[in-house]
Amino acid sequence: MLVTSRWVIGAVALLAVSSARTQGVVTQRILSVAAARVIAEAALAECVSRGFRTSVAVVDRSGNLLVVLRHELAHPVTVEMARSKAYTAVVFRDSTIEFQRDTASDATRLPQRDVAGILALGGGVPIYSAGEIIGGVASSGSSQTTDDECARAGAAKGASLLE
Amino acid sequence: MLVTSRWVIGAVALLAVSSARTQGVVTQRILSVAAARVIAEAALAECVSRGFRTSVAVVDRSGNLLVVLRHELAHPVTVEMARSKAYTAVVFRDSTIEFQRDTASDATRLPQRDVAGILALGGGVPIYSAGEIIGGVASSGSSQTTDDECARAGAAKGASLLE
Amino acid sequence: MLVTSRWVIGAVALLAVSSARTQGVVTQRILSVAAARVIAEAALAECVSRGFRTSVAVVDRSGNLLVVLRHELAHPVTVEMARSKAYTAVVFRDSTIEFQRDTASDATRLPQRDVAGILALGGGVPIYSAGEIIGGVASSGSSQTTDDECARAGAAKGASLLE
Amino acid sequence: MLVTSRWVIGAVALLAVSSARTQGVVTQRILSVAAARVIAEAALAECVSRGFRTSVAVVDRSGNLLVVLRHELAHPVTVEMARSKAYTAVVFRDSTIEFQRDTASDATRLPQRDVAGILALGGGVPIYSAGEIIGGVASSGSSQTTDDECARAGAAKGASLLE
Amino acid sequence: MLVTSRWVIGAVALLAVSSARTQGVVTQRILSVAAARVIAEAALAECVSRGFRTSVAVVDRSGNLLVVLRHELAHPVTVEMARSKAYTAVVFRDSTIEFQRDTASDATRLPQRDVAGILALGGGVPIYSAGEIIGGVASSGSSQTTDDECARAGAAKGASLLE
Amino acid sequence: MLVTSRWVIGAVALLAVSSARTQGVVTQRILSVAAARVIAEAALAECVSRGFRTSVAVVDRSGNLLVVLRHELAHPVTVEMARSKAYTAVVFRDSTIEFQRDTASDATRLPQRDVAGILALGGGVPIYSAGEIIGGVASSGSSQTTDDECARAGAAKGASLLE
Amino acid sequence: MLVTSRWVIGAVALLAVSSARTQGVVTQRILSVAAARVIAEAALAECVSRGFRTSVAVVDRSGNLLVVLRHELAHPVTVEMARSKAYTAVVFRDSTIEFQRDTASDATRLPQRDVAGILALGGGVPIYSAGEIIGGVASSGSSQTTDDECARAGAAKGASLLE
Amino acid sequence: MLVTSRWVIGAVALLAVSSARTQGVVTQRILSVAAARVIAEAALAECVSRGFRTSVAVVDRSGNLLVVLRHELAHPVTVEMARSKAYTAVVFRDSTIEFQRDTASDATRLPQRDVAGILALGGGVPIYSAGEIIGGVASSGSSQTTDDECARAGAAKGASLLE
Repeated sequence: MLVTSRWVIGAVALLAVSSARTQGVVTQRILSVAAARVIAEAALAECVSRGFRTSVAVVDRSGNLLVVLRHELAHPVTVEMARSKAYTAVVFRDSTIEFQRDTASDATRLPQRDVAGILALGGGVPIYSAGEIIGGVASSGSSQTTDDECARAGAAKGASLLE
Repeated sequence: MLVTSRWVIGAVALLAVSSARTQGVVTQRILSVAAARVIAEAALAECVSRGFRTSVAVVDRSGNLLVVLRHELAHPVTVEMARSKAYTAVVFRDSTIEFQRDTASDATRLPQRDVAGILALGGGVPIYSAGEIIGGVASSGSSQTTDDECARAGAAKGASLLE
Repeated sequence: MLVTSRWVIGAVALLAVSSARTQGVVTQRILSVAAARVIAEAALAECVSRGFRTSVAVVDRSGNLLVVLRHELAHPVTVEMARSKAYTAVVFRDSTIEFQRDTASDATRLPQRDVAGILALGGGVPIYSAGEIIGGVASSGSSQTTDDECARAGAAKGASLLE
Repeated sequence: MLVTSRWVIGAVALLAVSSARTQGVVTQRILSVAAARVIAEAALAECVSRGFRTSVAVVDRSGNLLVVLRHELAHPVTVEMARSKAYTAVVFRDSTIEFQRDTASDATRLPQRDVAGILALGGGVPIYSAGEIIGGVASSGSSQTTDDECARAGAAKGASLLE
Repeated sequence: MLVTSRWVIGAVALLAVSSARTQGVVTQRILSVAAARVIAEAALAECVSRGFRTSVAVVDRSGNLLVVLRHELAHPVTVEMARSKAYTAVVFRDSTIEFQRDTASDATRLPQRDVAGILALGGGVPIYSAGEIIGGVASSGSSQTTDDECARAGAAKGASLLE
Repeated sequence: MLVTSRWVIGAVALLAVSSARTQGVVTQRILSVAAARVIAEAALAECVSRGFRTSVAVVDRSGNLLVVLRHELAHPVTVEMARSKAYTAVVFRDSTIEFQRDTASDATRLPQRDVAGILALGGGVPIYSAGEIIGGVASSGSSQTTDDECARAGAAKGASLLE
Repeated sequence: MLVTSRWVIGAVALLAVSSARTQGVVTQRILSVAAARVIAEAALAECVSRGFRTSVAVVDRSGNLLVVLRHELAHPVTVEMARSKAYTAVVFRDSTIEFQRDTASDATRLPQRDVAGILALGGGVPIYSAGEIIGGVASSGSSQTTDDECARAGAAKGASLLE
Repeated sequence: MLVTSRWVIGAVALLAVSSARTQGVVTQRILSVAAARVIAEAALAECVSRGFRTSVAVVDRSGNLLVVLRHELAHPVTVEMARSKAYTAVVFRDSTIEFQRDTASDATRLPQRDVAGILALGGGVPIYSAGEIIGGVASSGSSQTTDDECARAGAAKGASLLE
């Protein structure tokens, strides 16, 4: 991803000299489980309110699971599908509906679907905080459009916690 | 999947309050091994009667194996193919011939073929009971059309047991 | 598992005759996501209240995930460990502390630890309803003893919902 | 395995000369699905008659599945456990109870348990025909002793078909 | 595959009655390692004589390896590619060049490429004996056309041993 | 892990109310690649100076790779072994020599070796910053004692960057 | 790959006679870790200088890892993607941008993307020494075009060491 | 492994300066397929002459397959077992019988058995050339003692080619 030039210049110097001024530790903002739960619950509630039995997964900025909620009548595979969608949204930094479109229309991006853990099905969206992606949320078990809306409902619910 | 509004409303309330009235246990109807055997045997017999050496798999509503029958001259891979087809029929709630057609004609559904365990080859059909999918049966080792017919023959044979 | 003789006799007859009286569909009681959430939250809260950052997993009677909650400072591997412990509690029908003891003291049971998905670490307990195991809950990230207590706290919290 | 000296000598000559007299095709006797079904059904019936809900797997001489029967209330993992036991019985040419004993008492054999697909739990037995192992049958879901007896009951039932 | 009606009728009867007349053991003709070596060596020699450094794999009728020969300067992945091609030739009962063409031109067969272990690259051919497929041979490391020719050269060399 | 009571109390409250005061984002300190390189190079140099050809891996606090250096004459497997050791040091929060001792002497901890990705061989140590584990470094390819010393040399070299 | 006729003739003779004149050991030139580090650092520096946070992988002629460098803010998956691209460049003996083009425009080559470990995304290039491919370098985490340029910058930096 | 001090000093200097004098390419001696075939055939012939039906695998110094020979009546798993034994002999630089003994008698080495691809069963031996390990050969399918002798017979047969 493109970063500010200040940061980049520092990094280059750092690579060149490996001096005592090397920045050994970097600070990173991560999604809390508390916010992840709010997001997951809102996403599941949205789908249930529309009459669907779905699974929801929330992952952190590395793509690791924070929260899973599976409706007892949703198929177990929906957990893995939701997890993959949330992971995809984090890795490719866009909703999976956009990822699906982009990889379908651009032949050079199509092989991105072959990366392990990636799934090009709508229903996953990134979670932002202060303009930065700090996680992803995804729904699985309804249609791709509805899953996308449920995930967005979850992300929206969490937004106020992540400012 | 879309469910009756009565059920949905109950679920939403349940999510909102988590009260003592929460429905902790839900009742589910599952396919018996006895019915699964009848279905598997009929599917294999149909293919054998047409001169094919095939494998048949029957899975429950979660997609787990209940019955496998492999003709001794069918290739071992046909067991895994039948298993995957039956699983696909359960997960995507349609015959694998329909799943193949739908994912071929709708680019947004094509990546459903990338989900682990899914196989878009004809020969798998859902098993219904009272309008509900409670399992799947699949044949592998002949042509896709014939495998589909064998699986349907199996499902038909079991239908009277599942009313 | 040992079942009542009435049931067994019926099953045997069923296997012998495959008649029209075959029981094609069986009713099963399954754990709801609502109850699973109550259990998971209580298990995590118990560990957090003791100063630990842990993950909790709740699985259904087949061992499939219903709920995951990972504290943002718990290592991602704790999700998989909690999942495996909960799965183990369901498969071997006992707490994982008991499973650990039994497989350590009985050489003939030791290879049960080699089954895929099994983990012989304390922290997983079965979830009962009306004397029947309908799921499992596990904690990972503190000590085995504490994880066991957290999981039990979760199961206890859910008990009233599962009567 | 040790074979008759006549055969061995032929093989050695064959390796040495690679002449036109090389035996290009060898005849092998394999287990039929018909016999495998008789064996599997008898093994399951034995366990059910004792009040257990189990899975049974029958594999051919290469260890590939021919038949699976899982009682609808047996845990899905019992299918994989039965498959592994039957495979183990074929690979190490003995019941899995004997395999367990031998690998426990002989430290040089212990690592045989580490081979992929092997499971050192009682319940698997070889299937013989004319003194030759042509497959394996295993039960999983009761105790190891009972699983062993169920598998033996299955093998015994099939014996008359395999003379 | 289609078999003679005599055989089929026997099989059907067998499924229906499970009587003492059940055919418990079936005789199968399998490829010897001696013939497999002749085939593999000829395939490798053909490629080497054309200036390529390749790998060759020969599998039996179940698709299990009998012989591997990798030129020391061929990439290790060529062993797995040759193995997959030989396996594909056996499973889909045709050369992998034909399999590639058929799955490219027939959308309903395209998902056959998704079956585990299958590789739609030219270079694999079935090995026949008396009109029956008893194995497969494949080359990897040159062009697909050349690999196909090398594999055919190997199969041709072995033909006289397999009559 | 045990944390300060202040933190814990906050977390509990947070779990109980899910209010607008929920801490949605948490700050985390992570190891930079610049420091990771210094550590890896020092670890490799230490082993090379003693006459060994080794691999070194540095992972972040989640256990994901930051740096790998493999001597060209070290076996490729040493990369995976170093990675696993570094991962183990992070997950179990101790050197792998200590992890090995603890899991050998305490039967209840022995199954920790069965967790995916864990390797109980000396040579991995945690990387600390301000008393917190922010990564791990491991060496593989010499003896366990030497690998441990090489990894410690690497960690020591990086210490000044991580204060 | 096509080799000089001298070599080929020798190989054929060798295969035919297996005589005492067989060439038992062959000399091979391999990439040193020292050169691999120079290449990896230059590739990462190029991307960082352009404002990207990426991962770099360098593999030897067999495709095994020699060096990994991941920027601490690059997603962990970029390590695996860089590894796969570098591996692909070695296996198919071309840049992954060319591999992508070739496999997109030639339907007979498309299935090369299905080989395990292969990834058809730009950013990987072979490393040459004296006209021979002795390794590969790849970048992941920016655009494919930029990743390709970063990898080329790395390879260029190493060129003088590899003459 | 310990190397001569001359080599080590060169390597250290190389790491310290990364100058233009860096040794970018290193020469390595590798096992030819011609020698590997001689070794494999001798190992198989030895076992066959004793009346066993076995598999033989020869791997190069990285542990990648060069040759596989499986007797048509040896179980397919013997190929994987032979491969693992040969790999183990290369990785741990000793016969697998010695590896088994060492890891059994030294608790700190026991976890070496847990490394992926390793198998602590007798029957694998290193292949030496000029005092250097350049590959491994293993037999599987008879007893461990006999497999060891067969592998040694193979290695001995190849010795004259590897001086």
